[in-house]
Amino acid sequence: MPELRQDPVTREWVIIATERAKRPTEFQGQGDTTRAVCLLSQRDACPFCDGNEGKTPPEIVAYRKPGTAANSRGWWIRVVPNRFPALKIEGGIERREVENFFRLMDGVGAHEVVIETPEHCDTIGIMDDHQAEEVVQMYLDRFLDLKGDKRMENITCFRNRGNLAGASLLHPHSQLIATPMVPNLLRHQLEMTFRYYDDHGKCVYCEMTRTELADGRRIVYTNDDYVAYTPFASRVPFETWIVPREHRSAFEGISRNQCKALGRTLNAVLGMVFRKLNDPDYNYVIRTEPLREDHSSYFHWSLHILPRLTTSAGFEMGSGMYINPMPPEKAAEFLRSS
Amino acid sequence: MPELRQDPVTREWVIIATERAKRPTEFQGQGDTTRAVCLLSQRDACPFCDGNEGKTPPEIVAYRKPGTAANSRGWWIRVVPNRFPALKIEGGIERREVENFFRLMDGVGAHEVVIETPEHCDTIGIMDDHQAEEVVQMYLDRFLDLKGDKRMENITCFRNRGNLAGASLLHPHSQLIATPMVPNLLRHQLEMTFRYYDDHGKCVYCEMTRTELADGRRIVYTNDDYVAYTPFASRVPFETWIVPREHRSAFEGISRNQCKALGRTLNAVLGMVFRKLNDPDYNYVIRTEPLREDHSSYFHWSLHILPRLTTSAGFEMGSGMYINPMPPEKAAEFLRSS
Repeated sequence: MPELRQDPVTREWVIIATERAKRPTEFQGQGDTTRAVCLLSQRDACPFCDGNEGKTPPEIVAYRKPGTAANSRGWWIRVVPNRFPALKIEGGIERREVENFFRLMDGVGAHEVVIETPEHCDTIGIMDDHQAEEVVQMYLDRFLDLKGDKRMENITCFRNRGNLAGASLLHPHSQLIATPMVPNLLRHQLEMTFRYYDDHGKCVYCEMTRTELADGRRIVYTNDDYVAYTPFASRVPFETWIVPREHRSAFEGISRNQCKALGRTLNAVLGMVFRKLNDPDYNYVIRTEPLREDHSSYFHWSLHILPRLTTSAGFEMGSGMYINPMPPEKAAEFLRSS
Repeated sequence: MPELRQDPVTREWVIIATERAKRPTEFQGQGDTTRAVCLLSQRDACPFCDGNEGKTPPEIVAYRKPGTAANSRGWWIRVVPNRFPALKIEGGIERREVENFFRLMDGVGAHEVVIETPEHCDTIGIMDDHQAEEVVQMYLDRFLDLKGDKRMENITCFRNRGNLAGASLLHPHSQLIATPMVPNLLRHQLEMTFRYYDDHGKCVYCEMTRTELADGRRIVYTNDDYVAYTPFASRVPFETWIVPREHRSAFEGISRNQCKALGRTLNAVLGMVFRKLNDPDYNYVIRTEPLREDHSSYFHWSLHILPRLTTSAGFEMGSGMYINPMPPEKAAEFLRSS
């Protein structure tokens, strides 16, 4: 029997489509099959590779060996502006009306690329833990720096892996987009979390994580700081959330040690995804509160990994509901198996 | 300069990314290139083709020549249950709590396929007007029949065209999924439309359509009953809405003549999309009010066409905002051009 499961945060329903269920192994290897072909010639052309620093716009910041110059070799993490930015840093934040009806703003914002390693064929999940820690440390640094621009109200930090996930380059990278407004989707989630708080006096994410730990079937990985699980109402096969045990609404509020632990957790969880699903395409995104607002009583930051193993279609677009052919209990069991 | 445009209905923001803008012709022919290969052997295997009626589950209803038997030749529109239904017709609608925290329902609902023609290689946009009228008439018949099941609260009627749009079969077909609850996305849109109504005393869709007609730049097609335009805050390149001129909240409330006119309008607009964009993959969906609720003062049904020419990535998933590299004014101009 199919099931309709409700996401405790958004209250959106998901169809767990048992009639369409596949075995976990049927999802393997549906990613970008050209990825395995990793030739030196690709590195020569790749703007993110070591030695090709001149092929990107000038770097914003980098972690690099003492004595090496900006935009030269010697870095291990490098941040550059997106060459084709969705938003630009110059402009005002006034909302204005056009055609006596529509609302419009200048497309002001920041669009940065975090190059996660000089190695073309490395990736989070198989890199060494220290490098993954440094990636997350750079996210944190960029959050704190971009927060200094008072026009910016929100930052979306995300990673696209593979063509199906919208990545145009293989070389490991993440992106940050700072916007001068809060997305409506986030507004809706903030509203849902404060409604839960008003009803129960508790954070819905804390309660959910406590429930997941007690049940255990959907747990993928845990350590002292984070719990990773396939959520009860998973929208897509192998959707996995990394949730900090400590209640905190802003990602940029984490400590240095929590930052390192997040890097190791990401590396461990994406390593399971990489090995068990044969390097699938995926997106991940950090869900955190807006930069200028305090939702600390009821909101809880987290990181969401969404493998791209299925195609969303008219039903998903029209209803906002997802049809997921992989029960999350089976997904977690498969990811945990050795 | 990029622009941030707000959808007047959902209030979600869209980035019109001028820095990433492409020429309209650059979007052509990115659809399913295997589609042109249309061999008789495909027809032999296709469960939706004329003569292969035994390859589907027994038909629910069909428009067929007098004297021909169900599940045999002689039909021109045929409705069958989805062979791998997302939801099943048997079950109860009680919501229950599991693990002392999560909400769950039986996956009860209906999942039907409307086979739009016996011809494997025809499609809405290039079929004759009468056939397109009959497709829409069948949607209407199915809405009215499914509404008779009092457990059902909402119907999503949609069409997936091409692999990138989630279609697994080329043969022209649409789908209806009836669910025992109202999707949260629709709830949100209903709320936004009544807020607009409370503020302005008018329907936001009526106002938007009036504005589009006055401006004209985003108009794609009009007739006495419908207006087709690329919306101001188009989420994807060549997104096109077909909006009825008459204010009405429920699709299933349209007259016989409005039904025929919708078939002709769909055929005309999708014909422009087919010819100008070289048969791209797309989804369309009918956005209409829930079956058991009356939102007639402020809600307005419409049909939304979303070509799949770009890939949504981590930013869209994380923020709900879209980055659209094609200004809708240019998209409409290109679709209108001969």
